[in-house]
Amino acid sequence: MSGLARKYEINADMGEGFGRWKMGPDEALMPFIDAANIACGFHAGDPTIMLQTIRLCKQHGVKAGAHPGQQDLFGFGRRRIEVDPGDMYASVLYQVGALQAMLDAEGVPLAHIKPHGDLFFYMQRDAAIMRAVLEACATFRVPVYGAQNPQQAAMCLELGIPFQGEMYVDIDYSPAGRLLPVAQSRVPTPELCYARARSAALTDTGKDIEGNEFRFGFEGTPFSICVHSDLPTVLENVAGVRRAVDEANRLRFPQEASAA
Amino acid sequence: MSGLARKYEINADMGEGFGRWKMGPDEALMPFIDAANIACGFHAGDPTIMLQTIRLCKQHGVKAGAHPGQQDLFGFGRRRIEVDPGDMYASVLYQVGALQAMLDAEGVPLAHIKPHGDLFFYMQRDAAIMRAVLEACATFRVPVYGAQNPQQAAMCLELGIPFQGEMYVDIDYSPAGRLLPVAQSRVPTPELCYARARSAALTDTGKDIEGNEFRFGFEGTPFSICVHSDLPTVLENVAGVRRAVDEANRLRFPQEASAA
Amino acid sequence: MSGLARKYEINADMGEGFGRWKMGPDEALMPFIDAANIACGFHAGDPTIMLQTIRLCKQHGVKAGAHPGQQDLFGFGRRRIEVDPGDMYASVLYQVGALQAMLDAEGVPLAHIKPHGDLFFYMQRDAAIMRAVLEACATFRVPVYGAQNPQQAAMCLELGIPFQGEMYVDIDYSPAGRLLPVAQSRVPTPELCYARARSAALTDTGKDIEGNEFRFGFEGTPFSICVHSDLPTVLENVAGVRRAVDEANRLRFPQEASAA
Amino acid sequence: MSGLARKYEINADMGEGFGRWKMGPDEALMPFIDAANIACGFHAGDPTIMLQTIRLCKQHGVKAGAHPGQQDLFGFGRRRIEVDPGDMYASVLYQVGALQAMLDAEGVPLAHIKPHGDLFFYMQRDAAIMRAVLEACATFRVPVYGAQNPQQAAMCLELGIPFQGEMYVDIDYSPAGRLLPVAQSRVPTPELCYARARSAALTDTGKDIEGNEFRFGFEGTPFSICVHSDLPTVLENVAGVRRAVDEANRLRFPQEASAA
Repeated sequence: MSGLARKYEINADMGEGFGRWKMGPDEALMPFIDAANIACGFHAGDPTIMLQTIRLCKQHGVKAGAHPGQQDLFGFGRRRIEVDPGDMYASVLYQVGALQAMLDAEGVPLAHIKPHGDLFFYMQRDAAIMRAVLEACATFRVPVYGAQNPQQAAMCLELGIPFQGEMYVDIDYSPAGRLLPVAQSRVPTPELCYARARSAALTDTGKDIEGNEFRFGFEGTPFSICVHSDLPTVLENVAGVRRAVDEANRLRFPQEASAA
Repeated sequence: MSGLARKYEINADMGEGFGRWKMGPDEALMPFIDAANIACGFHAGDPTIMLQTIRLCKQHGVKAGAHPGQQDLFGFGRRRIEVDPGDMYASVLYQVGALQAMLDAEGVPLAHIKPHGDLFFYMQRDAAIMRAVLEACATFRVPVYGAQNPQQAAMCLELGIPFQGEMYVDIDYSPAGRLLPVAQSRVPTPELCYARARSAALTDTGKDIEGNEFRFGFEGTPFSICVHSDLPTVLENVAGVRRAVDEANRLRFPQEASAA
Repeated sequence: MSGLARKYEINADMGEGFGRWKMGPDEALMPFIDAANIACGFHAGDPTIMLQTIRLCKQHGVKAGAHPGQQDLFGFGRRRIEVDPGDMYASVLYQVGALQAMLDAEGVPLAHIKPHGDLFFYMQRDAAIMRAVLEACATFRVPVYGAQNPQQAAMCLELGIPFQGEMYVDIDYSPAGRLLPVAQSRVPTPELCYARARSAALTDTGKDIEGNEFRFGFEGTPFSICVHSDLPTVLENVAGVRRAVDEANRLRFPQEASAA
Repeated sequence: MSGLARKYEINADMGEGFGRWKMGPDEALMPFIDAANIACGFHAGDPTIMLQTIRLCKQHGVKAGAHPGQQDLFGFGRRRIEVDPGDMYASVLYQVGALQAMLDAEGVPLAHIKPHGDLFFYMQRDAAIMRAVLEACATFRVPVYGAQNPQQAAMCLELGIPFQGEMYVDIDYSPAGRLLPVAQSRVPTPELCYARARSAALTDTGKDIEGNEFRFGFEGTPFSICVHSDLPTVLENVAGVRRAVDEANRLRFPQEASAA
């Protein structure tokens, strides 16, 4: 069993506060999602928040994954920081291991690993970093989440890591099929999120920011939809995504849909 | 199998540098010891140093244990910091879990957990903290190291945690049988370390700083001797302790001594 | 000129976010207050937030003071951390100096220093820490804010530091005249805040949590009223306090009131 | 008075420990140098070490300068970290201001500012960062130290900041006149350091790693020679540099040399 999604699902970043500081409506969002990416203390999160988030996942039947990041509380893991590949390998083991122990204590399995912010982008632009991160991930024998990338898919295959493709509905895609930052994207509405999720699930297509249709290339494989838990309208939007996902699952994966 | 020592052994704190900063002659010390307490990044250590130290342990056949501490790089984990027991529980899971993942990646078992500096003393003075730390340790199913303490022994028993008693030969004991800080202890010589280790192992007795004999109370059970890796004379001293331990093991635990 | 208040005034903690994390409605609160206590990066705040807060003060004509704290982002400076007095002296110089340079760059004078959270309480329970903090403050030649405390007043006098007395209207006082934590206080209403501020200013009296009247002991000297910027109702409450302060100033300090 | 060197001088990085960790033989080095670049807590140093280093400077009559760096204890300020220019401006004000307050408390003037490690290199490769750093430096009205760079010299001129040129004798220069990292340089001997310092001071020339002569371009202006306080042979080397500098000063700047 690969741990890959067996129907369309929704994931969101969770536990991204620190100490007294909050980020995102974690509790209100839990009922709408299937998988949580839990910050591991380097870009956000602290041990106590990690444990609370695991307990929230348990309570809501949401899959608990690790969300390792660059060591950068000030920049929320979104700044480029030069890291030696050996340091990066150790850093990912450290973060995911810390979460794994808490999951063990709570009797919850580690479901997946999703690199955060610039850690994800660093992997895309530096093959040695991609290998370092994936080799660390391989220790945990769970799927790694990410946008479609042939190089990453190939390296996952080589290392025996299941790769879980995902897409976004609350930000825009460029004509080249790249994700645009929030600031360059249109403000998403629940209707738009619903329509995008439905289109991706049922026809494998999306529209870029110029209105041209493109194919995602999921080819019927179930994928995960990531919603941004730090957007102010996330609770409205996720309801639209949830509706689209549930409808599509009943059409495409009826057995799985009724099993849940 | 409890993981407890089956003959006298020597343990030392290891991996207590940070980034470019060094602490202690780790490589030179490894051939003399049986068990390493590896700092987990909160009072000292970073992910890269942790991994290097694990590899050193592997190379020298030294048991690798976790050495969690207070989150206090500035104070090296030796200052009193007030921690909520729930935060402490999560913090110990976090640190030991981080090390555990690196050990898994290297195929080395986690051998034990030894709380560092004020984390150890906090446990002794606050029962809620002791329980929080030990409950976190219980997740890992390995022995916890510490000086003899009936309350701690009882709580370990209740939680199903093996407790490994230990003693020191490079600092002094007060007349009340308490360990004295380095600054209040005599400068240890290799001969003194040898004599103290031998006396503890063969007669279960030591001499306090006033010269009066006291019993350790190990009652023939194998114990661990901790040497301070940050004392300038540690390499000379540990050779004396090693000799005493090897001699005592041949007398007391001949089967184990020849097996190693 | 001592820098002490010449009429009743309102102060509040400001700039207590960190990186992407926010705390308190700083911009909305500025029009209602006279003095801001700016976090200096140890318990909250970062260089960029500090500079933004200084610019907000400048824009609103609010006095800018330093709000140094314990080095404890996780605990928001509210946990007890053991600090050597020499380390504390250096730590306060460091924090206030960092703010001072930004004020210099903006052409804004440093108006005062107010120790935050447990740094304040540590001073009250440990005379060596009080002295270390006040000796560091003395370098800056500005008033130190704090609740009435004869020992602190005497030490300020000795060191030539003006001491600015303050009181609170959004939390309760115990029968012994001590401030009660938010959790043990009644939820404050704007009317209650108004009435308490008015009573303190015009009759030097308050009521403790049991309803018994006590004297503050300001004896007609202008004092500062601190409002908690992190209480959810702070914007409603501060409007009540502002009204009371303005009314009292017109009665007690008419020349200063019309000068502002 | 510009604060620029009036004869050849030697500078070295100082106070680069953190908490219990040491770096470099600060006390032994002090008698040989003219100016200390004091780490400000971001890449190394802590408030207590900063204050101790200032007191050492005072005791030895060594000029005390600020050595701000990237916020990167793990990487010792040598890794590339992406920083918004506005954040960088605030960060340099913060660090130098922190040191300035300690200098004020000790009655020692701030002598200069020298950016550390990647902060220096970041300035060389990004004009917005160079401007942000120099604008922050301009607040303190002291010379900024650095290798010769026409762009930096021009921006210093524009901002009214004296620029102090410096060179190195314990690492090599590439044929393009760039400094080579320690790892790519020959191991320096005291004789080599002496010869290089003498050649630069008396003939304005050096030899690159291929043995070809080049001109530094100081054109008779007194410059500063930086020695690496973290090289194992620094104490031997600095004695050679000191001898060369003293000899050259007696030849070139006899009045200043006898005045000191």
